[in-house]
Amino acid sequence: MLNFMCDYTRGCHPQILENLTTTNFEQSVGYGLDPHSKRACKLILDKCGLKDGQVYFLVGGTQTNDTVIDGLLSKVEGVICASSGHISVHEAGAIESSGHKLLTLPSYEGKLKACDLSQYLKDFFNDETSEHMVQPGMVYISQPTEFGTLYSKSELTEIYKICKDYHLPLYVDGARLGYALGASANDVSLEDLASLCDVFYIGGTKVGALFGEAVVVKDPKMLPKFFTLIKQHGALLAKGRILGIQFETLFTDDLYFKIGKIAVSLALQIRKAFESKGFRCYVNSPTNQQFFVLPNEVLDALQKEVLFELWGPRGEKESAVRLVTDWATSQEDVDKLIAILEKL
Amino acid sequence: MLNFMCDYTRGCHPQILENLTTTNFEQSVGYGLDPHSKRACKLILDKCGLKDGQVYFLVGGTQTNDTVIDGLLSKVEGVICASSGHISVHEAGAIESSGHKLLTLPSYEGKLKACDLSQYLKDFFNDETSEHMVQPGMVYISQPTEFGTLYSKSELTEIYKICKDYHLPLYVDGARLGYALGASANDVSLEDLASLCDVFYIGGTKVGALFGEAVVVKDPKMLPKFFTLIKQHGALLAKGRILGIQFETLFTDDLYFKIGKIAVSLALQIRKAFESKGFRCYVNSPTNQQFFVLPNEVLDALQKEVLFELWGPRGEKESAVRLVTDWATSQEDVDKLIAILEKL
Amino acid sequence: MLNFMCDYTRGCHPQILENLTTTNFEQSVGYGLDPHSKRACKLILDKCGLKDGQVYFLVGGTQTNDTVIDGLLSKVEGVICASSGHISVHEAGAIESSGHKLLTLPSYEGKLKACDLSQYLKDFFNDETSEHMVQPGMVYISQPTEFGTLYSKSELTEIYKICKDYHLPLYVDGARLGYALGASANDVSLEDLASLCDVFYIGGTKVGALFGEAVVVKDPKMLPKFFTLIKQHGALLAKGRILGIQFETLFTDDLYFKIGKIAVSLALQIRKAFESKGFRCYVNSPTNQQFFVLPNEVLDALQKEVLFELWGPRGEKESAVRLVTDWATSQEDVDKLIAILEKL
Amino acid sequence: MLNFMCDYTRGCHPQILENLTTTNFEQSVGYGLDPHSKRACKLILDKCGLKDGQVYFLVGGTQTNDTVIDGLLSKVEGVICASSGHISVHEAGAIESSGHKLLTLPSYEGKLKACDLSQYLKDFFNDETSEHMVQPGMVYISQPTEFGTLYSKSELTEIYKICKDYHLPLYVDGARLGYALGASANDVSLEDLASLCDVFYIGGTKVGALFGEAVVVKDPKMLPKFFTLIKQHGALLAKGRILGIQFETLFTDDLYFKIGKIAVSLALQIRKAFESKGFRCYVNSPTNQQFFVLPNEVLDALQKEVLFELWGPRGEKESAVRLVTDWATSQEDVDKLIAILEKL
Repeated sequence: MLNFMCDYTRGCHPQILENLTTTNFEQSVGYGLDPHSKRACKLILDKCGLKDGQVYFLVGGTQTNDTVIDGLLSKVEGVICASSGHISVHEAGAIESSGHKLLTLPSYEGKLKACDLSQYLKDFFNDETSEHMVQPGMVYISQPTEFGTLYSKSELTEIYKICKDYHLPLYVDGARLGYALGASANDVSLEDLASLCDVFYIGGTKVGALFGEAVVVKDPKMLPKFFTLIKQHGALLAKGRILGIQFETLFTDDLYFKIGKIAVSLALQIRKAFESKGFRCYVNSPTNQQFFVLPNEVLDALQKEVLFELWGPRGEKESAVRLVTDWATSQEDVDKLIAILEKL
Repeated sequence: MLNFMCDYTRGCHPQILENLTTTNFEQSVGYGLDPHSKRACKLILDKCGLKDGQVYFLVGGTQTNDTVIDGLLSKVEGVICASSGHISVHEAGAIESSGHKLLTLPSYEGKLKACDLSQYLKDFFNDETSEHMVQPGMVYISQPTEFGTLYSKSELTEIYKICKDYHLPLYVDGARLGYALGASANDVSLEDLASLCDVFYIGGTKVGALFGEAVVVKDPKMLPKFFTLIKQHGALLAKGRILGIQFETLFTDDLYFKIGKIAVSLALQIRKAFESKGFRCYVNSPTNQQFFVLPNEVLDALQKEVLFELWGPRGEKESAVRLVTDWATSQEDVDKLIAILEKL
Repeated sequence: MLNFMCDYTRGCHPQILENLTTTNFEQSVGYGLDPHSKRACKLILDKCGLKDGQVYFLVGGTQTNDTVIDGLLSKVEGVICASSGHISVHEAGAIESSGHKLLTLPSYEGKLKACDLSQYLKDFFNDETSEHMVQPGMVYISQPTEFGTLYSKSELTEIYKICKDYHLPLYVDGARLGYALGASANDVSLEDLASLCDVFYIGGTKVGALFGEAVVVKDPKMLPKFFTLIKQHGALLAKGRILGIQFETLFTDDLYFKIGKIAVSLALQIRKAFESKGFRCYVNSPTNQQFFVLPNEVLDALQKEVLFELWGPRGEKESAVRLVTDWATSQEDVDKLIAILEKL
Repeated sequence: MLNFMCDYTRGCHPQILENLTTTNFEQSVGYGLDPHSKRACKLILDKCGLKDGQVYFLVGGTQTNDTVIDGLLSKVEGVICASSGHISVHEAGAIESSGHKLLTLPSYEGKLKACDLSQYLKDFFNDETSEHMVQPGMVYISQPTEFGTLYSKSELTEIYKICKDYHLPLYVDGARLGYALGASANDVSLEDLASLCDVFYIGGTKVGALFGEAVVVKDPKMLPKFFTLIKQHGALLAKGRILGIQFETLFTDDLYFKIGKIAVSLALQIRKAFESKGFRCYVNSPTNQQFFVLPNEVLDALQKEVLFELWGPRGEKESAVRLVTDWATSQEDVDKLIAILEKL
């Protein structure tokens, strides 16, 4: 059965398995201090154009968000995010369990608006009772967002300027960053991103790795004793090199970028096919997640041959659905899907 | 200068000071195990019509909310509340700092609507990803609310029914409970309240005590090892009898109820005076907090002779303000205020 | 019945009740921003010889320790203390519940030894796995200790020097500080203490107040946004002036010092009487807590006429006991106790 | 260079890589709900003789300890462990960061003694101030311990009996469980272990997996909503099947047991060689970790050709060292080491 459920249904890019196999009997120190991790770190910093940055490899997205946010905030500070942010909805309260409040602002197809952020901060510091409230301590956004949408370079620049004005670190969740970088509609390069925020992570789990997220920190002093914090969060992999080898592979010969590019182009083929059939997009996503509104009978027919996600509750007459491509989606898969669609 | 700023500008009801003085040289055990605390506990349970309940005396409201909520929730559970709830806005993230997410629903002049609660719970348990989310673990409401409004008996009954259906404890923040009980518009007696929720607290700080809140638990098994949790939260007063003596006083000769009644009747005189002058209410509050919308020139004139709170940001032409009466407000104070108002 | 159980069996010094009564109908702002709190703050800083310090008034000891320690430590840091420290034994895990590990060192009658501290720190920073461990973040001691013993000025100087060498704040728990300052064996004045640590608190609860602890911070920048942290810990008293008035009273006409002096001199009379009868001290305490080893038959006889605490488990033949004097102990009480002792 | 540093210097057992490769393009649901994870779960429960148990797969040891302990304890409860326990020393305060105190008892070569446990619990519940203390909520031991030592079946039985008497769950950290099960000195089978505790984990990271720990719960009701707690701790692997496939491999054809057996037999060869040369054991370990006391000149000579760990600080004349074998250690490696040793 065709499966467009999500971007983590399969193992990993074969090159990663091959490199894990080749290096399997090397002996090295643990905890990310091995040569592969160091090389991966250097490859990433070079691509980011960061000379004095630091890279930390963690295992998964929720873990990464929780650890980074806990490192950036003091006890009385919270994190500003869109109400649809992954940390707000689908991380089982990890951030609050580390003691921090989420300060949610309206979400526009997953995006935070600079004007909302600016107004919130102005109001907060004008409020005479603000000392009785959680202090804004940082800003969290995701690129692409949970709805597949993208911040443009000018939007990101505007948000970062506000952050700087208020001395708030800007952190970007890049769980699917490869699919942003590979989108033709994207104008924020990896180097741009590195210069337009303080900390971000390059998602591996959803972009071809078995697992793994690479946290990039522009100024390592922002996260003092971060190694120990990673350990405290249970996020330090003993055989750290397994993360190193994966990112070494992804950042050799631009594999990470190629993966993103192909997956997005296949996603856009899917979009075109749905639109040709007269189904409208639920969200205007230029990346590997595509959302459509389907009449329920179409949905039911499609589900007999294809796995995909119902997005939100089933409606009375029509419902929103999500189809996702990833590093392993083939042209053949997409052709089959389109053929099925044609027949409906 | 006249002061209608809030309900904690003065010390305490003179009878409390007198009783503290009379008992000052008695020697007793600490931590609320003394005879005065025991007697206060019995007086309260009797008034609540609770035979098998338990009462715990804590010092302040934020502390009480944080300790009770922490006692009622497991690690993966959050507390449902109106977005305007005191725990959500003005407790500096105390609840999150204990690890719990607030699950906020819309606020209607401070109140949670049963239909919103019901819909939220239905949606949550229908959502296939709900295991990745913070679980609803209890419901928090306040009576009166932060806007002075009241739940009616039928509204409370409806909310409690939903809570029971979903096995969620209902907790009522009664920081100003005396001013609900003393309102002629109120149809929820203390005994009603005790039967229509699982845990609530009777606020002392704002209703005539120096400080102190009495947590009433219908079934003590709901809060196992609660004494130790109170201690852990830094909320266990060494000289616990000072809380006991205060509540003993407040619940002798219905002092608590009388305080509420007088303050509310004075508040309604104020309301009538403002309305007579043509100023509209910002919120329709039947209790000791009154909110008005005033033209800015009126506001400025009034502020020269009276202290009160600007409620939210100053508007361009008119602004919302709050005036509060309390246990110590005199008819004379109110007459003076009305006289000032007349002259404007 | 005579009661030497502890130093919080009665209300408060009568002068405090009198001042609370006199000021009862003044109206003032809340949260410690009132004139009484400000004056108390100034009185205390003057006595401490601190020009640029800050004073915060909190309600109780566990709460104070938890809030200050949480303010001084980052997430990966722990607090070094003697294994007998109050924070380690009798605070129900408040510090851990805020996320911080206690790094316990041996206790010598309640005291931490400079050489142990120094060795621990040397070992820690020599350990190649120290990045996998909780980082030492501050040092906690108490003056007097939980066993009534005192640090001498030279001991304190030595400990503080080590702290400074390792950039660790030194925090002194002064729950019973008045009884240290009032001891003839003490050579650490309040001004000395203020210069030989970074943060300490002046205990009110056990030294004549109804409740209340005054946190003195030498350099307020060490505890940024501390007001909000106090609120988050549920430790901000709405009617903050009640704390202000109490400390204003205690620091007027040296009341705090007089209370300590009298209580300690009475305690030493008790000690002399026990020693005259041939009973040895369990701990050599020069302050208001006295510990004796009594044959069980003496203990039983004494308990018929006097309340005091059994210190630890009852032994087979003899047991340790504690008798405590406080601000309210009278010469008459002590005379009666000695008379009873004589008759045994 | 020969490397006996630790048991996580290499990748994983080749069969695991092979199985990851074979299954790489299968598509399956995430989060451990896939067929491989289900089969691995069944294989493990069968080996444990647990019909109604449940298995959860997590990524690493600290994470597993933190999540399980957080699931078993209430807010006011702590975990009893030996002072040398991994959770106490080398987990960067993860347990405290989740709010729980460690209640440490003496360690005897890594082991907790039943009599100490029993005495501690008796004293605790006899102490009149115990309500002011962290409540004992569970017991943590490791098999083998951090010093390679083993609990015998009778020791474990005795400890578990005490736990049951006090209604405390017993949790066993099996980070190196394979090397206990493979030791000839061991009399606790996997089935025994499953019946003599409530929760334990089967360590994969150090016993041939790339990473991964399998938590076995006898009665799933002991860890309600554990899936959500795992997510909250950032411990839920998106591609959960990667854990499933690894444990499926380890529990097929008794691979896990064979790995343990070979590694331990090689470790005992090393031990015999050191003892033959007249070097005494620092700890009497019957498992894959071997500890010796070496004269410093021997240590220095050996370090020129072999990597191993200095155990604790270097002594003046002699020092303790640790050598570790693992799933990948070959007879050839050990022969070389012995040859080097002979020449010294």
